[in-house]
Amino acid sequence: MNEAAQKALVVLSGGQDSTTCLYWALDRFGAKSVSAVTFDYGQRHRIELDCARRVASHAGVPIVRLPIDTFAALGGDALTDSSIDVEPEVDTGSGLPNTFVPGRNIIFLTFAAAYAWRQGIGNLVTGVAQTDYSGYPDCRENTIRSLEQTLRLGMESDIRIHAPLMQRSKKETVELAVELGALEAMALTHTCYNGVRPPCGECPACKLRARGFDEAGVEDPLLAAS
Amino acid sequence: MNEAAQKALVVLSGGQDSTTCLYWALDRFGAKSVSAVTFDYGQRHRIELDCARRVASHAGVPIVRLPIDTFAALGGDALTDSSIDVEPEVDTGSGLPNTFVPGRNIIFLTFAAAYAWRQGIGNLVTGVAQTDYSGYPDCRENTIRSLEQTLRLGMESDIRIHAPLMQRSKKETVELAVELGALEAMALTHTCYNGVRPPCGECPACKLRARGFDEAGVEDPLLAAS
Repeated sequence: MNEAAQKALVVLSGGQDSTTCLYWALDRFGAKSVSAVTFDYGQRHRIELDCARRVASHAGVPIVRLPIDTFAALGGDALTDSSIDVEPEVDTGSGLPNTFVPGRNIIFLTFAAAYAWRQGIGNLVTGVAQTDYSGYPDCRENTIRSLEQTLRLGMESDIRIHAPLMQRSKKETVELAVELGALEAMALTHTCYNGVRPPCGECPACKLRARGFDEAGVEDPLLAAS
Repeated sequence: MNEAAQKALVVLSGGQDSTTCLYWALDRFGAKSVSAVTFDYGQRHRIELDCARRVASHAGVPIVRLPIDTFAALGGDALTDSSIDVEPEVDTGSGLPNTFVPGRNIIFLTFAAAYAWRQGIGNLVTGVAQTDYSGYPDCRENTIRSLEQTLRLGMESDIRIHAPLMQRSKKETVELAVELGALEAMALTHTCYNGVRPPCGECPACKLRARGFDEAGVEDPLLAAS
């Protein structure tokens, strides 16, 4: 097996799923072979970037932060006047950029693959799951497999994309975290849509997380720490 | 045929190939159905952005400019210290960012697809060609077809990627430009690796362009205009 095939890069958002994936990668590839990348793309909650950094630090894994300013520019109604550039759009409700764009995971994984290519890393690990994919088709197995093929062709590499949570429910993800010793790191993660710590407990993300811990019969360390 | 299927977005770099593709799109989809996107990604020669704008204006096509700051951050040796962000790397030789990354066309086309998705545009047009692909595997037919499939799955859309120059030599691209009435716009394009106007005539890009025009028996309007 070549050297790149023994190294892994985890796309780390600072949330529950990607943190579990980081520990999955540590278990599979070994502590010295894992690194992480996080994206600063103008997300509503800057706390995510802090969480990603703290999780990586807790796990003893180097992390690189890459900027992406394109989503913010794409977020609003794009201008089509040839004399005007597109500027990041501000959501007047929240005062923060509206940054959702279709295909966001394709972009994240392609930039991660470019970084991995430069670093001689042959594996990407992502926390996407199709069990509760919330309407994002680029989190599904068929998209991820097609993207893997595109990246292999387009970069002439043997890169592999691992999505260990793809078929797991939230309950099963919690069970996996326990099994991998990732539970302590869960106290450092961020899930709440309202971007607050302690988490609001009321938003759909908080509720989904709570149900997963409940069903697994495990206390959420994030709540215990709050 | 639905409305999106009748509209096209051209990825316009301001060079000879993408300009030819713009006229190909105008011919195929009609003047009112074509728009263009260009990327401000920290390219060495800012003149490209001006050329893209001038070409679009000449053709009467709206153009949108989108920023991508990620390539510059990826360009250098990425940092892996968890306490330091990656900053755009400067190539000490040229004083400009070293922005080549593998998979650049995958990124361009994915952002273009995201923009098209928002705008209700069902066709992307790109000037990539595998005949003289200069070592970039993401310009090849197999990568483009795989990416098309990835985007269709990941955005749940019927988007199509057209690469009309894929199998054409430079000579044939010049002949196509003549046929499409794109020759006048060629005076506004930019090809030279040294980023100068009039073009240096000595760099590989200038020589490749000159050979194409020579073989087609056509005078390059860029040289006539200089």
